[in-house]
Amino acid sequence: MSEDKSTEISETFIELAQNELKVETIDKEVEQYKIRKMQSVYTERDTLIEKIPSFWKIVLSQHLDFANYIRASDFKYIDAIEKITVKYDAEIEKIGSFSITFHFNEIKDDLVSQVVTKSFKLTKEAPSTKNKDDKSDVDDLEPEEILISESCAIQWPKEYNSINPDMITDKKSPEGKKNYRQGMKSFFGWFKWTGLKPGKEFPHGDSLATLFSEDLYPYCVKYYTEAQRDFADEASYSEDSSEEGIDLSEGEDNEDEPAKKKLHA
Amino acid sequence: MSEDKSTEISETFIELAQNELKVETIDKEVEQYKIRKMQSVYTERDTLIEKIPSFWKIVLSQHLDFANYIRASDFKYIDAIEKITVKYDAEIEKIGSFSITFHFNEIKDDLVSQVVTKSFKLTKEAPSTKNKDDKSDVDDLEPEEILISESCAIQWPKEYNSINPDMITDKKSPEGKKNYRQGMKSFFGWFKWTGLKPGKEFPHGDSLATLFSEDLYPYCVKYYTEAQRDFADEASYSEDSSEEGIDLSEGEDNEDEPAKKKLHA
Repeated sequence: MSEDKSTEISETFIELAQNELKVETIDKEVEQYKIRKMQSVYTERDTLIEKIPSFWKIVLSQHLDFANYIRASDFKYIDAIEKITVKYDAEIEKIGSFSITFHFNEIKDDLVSQVVTKSFKLTKEAPSTKNKDDKSDVDDLEPEEILISESCAIQWPKEYNSINPDMITDKKSPEGKKNYRQGMKSFFGWFKWTGLKPGKEFPHGDSLATLFSEDLYPYCVKYYTEAQRDFADEASYSEDSSEEGIDLSEGEDNEDEPAKKKLHA
Repeated sequence: MSEDKSTEISETFIELAQNELKVETIDKEVEQYKIRKMQSVYTERDTLIEKIPSFWKIVLSQHLDFANYIRASDFKYIDAIEKITVKYDAEIEKIGSFSITFHFNEIKDDLVSQVVTKSFKLTKEAPSTKNKDDKSDVDDLEPEEILISESCAIQWPKEYNSINPDMITDKKSPEGKKNYRQGMKSFFGWFKWTGLKPGKEFPHGDSLATLFSEDLYPYCVKYYTEAQRDFADEASYSEDSSEEGIDLSEGEDNEDEPAKKKLHA
């Protein structure tokens, strides 16, 4: 490559980096516009959802990916969640930050009724964690933003006493270590997640947070509707299956839906 | 459940359906706001990208999912794509519709240089394809929208003569059928995709279209940057590997990136 050509390309990369900043600014403006427009509609929806029995229990068991984040034994407590709300920060400097509020029902002799809010902040990654040796031309195009949080107070269920980090007396014994790690991997461990101690906290705590803020909360009615349809399909399938020549194409169509939905979302 | 309670829930479902319509309207307004704001920045970016050699070749080979849509033999022609642009319809009734323009370079004795535009329209699914037996209360919450297109003229490469549907003389022979199907599954077959003949067209033609409109085009600079980093990492890895005690954590971090990016997108 000639030197002129190479200089021209370097200049193009700088212009492209500036253009990317414009794209990012617009992305934030669009997000702000959306948050402001959506606020009152979401508040109205929160009130309506409260009137539907087991709404969140149905939504959270319908979502295929959610179960991958938590322990099977957590589902008992997931079912105790009566209400979930997400509030999105609308200030342009805070776009991408949000807080999630969970309303837990009491489970007799096990879990207290409680309302817990966990806040998440989108922030530029600390420079110390960046690869200092990376001198690539285009590296500055993309400052990495990460989600962080603060450990947040929540009453653990009594049944989790043995893995509740606040109740493990000897965290250094093999047994203590094992229990601590198990607790950290539970849904209650997620409330301790900060994003600053990788490998020592709830795994993929940031992804679970964005699963709530970008998928479960915005599309909760769609997931609820899907679950209702699946129930209806199962019911009609049991009826139909007594006859011969079942048309399975409907079932296949329905299986396609979640994928399609995500594309249009 | 008491009758009063059941009536109240039915009313709630109706209100929830109305609320969902408000959400959909806002989604369209947000999309319109974004398209209008982004237009000039994307146009500027298109001009900059043209100056970077092999930009689209690098982007398309970097994207992990793109290769799943096409035949391995298509890559030769994918590499001949010099420029890709996407135009998004900004009219509120047409939100979700878009057109993709491909600029192909000539491949001597095989492919002509050509500019091809394929348009996609988001439309409500024809009522005939809906499940008429479905009397579920909540069904009307979600009218299904699908992407359709028209078969669009493109010159196929000479090397594809045997699978080019316009050149297969006997489409009813087993050989002819087999070749026809192979052609339909090629990248060039995608240009014939309409979305109206499921099973007989390019598979998942709508997903490939949205891959371009929602992922590859909007995030092309990010994919290009990622590819450049991977090249740099590979180079530094070959250097490092002569020494003992390589820190693999950097490599792992980089592998995490595409997933992280999608979450914040």
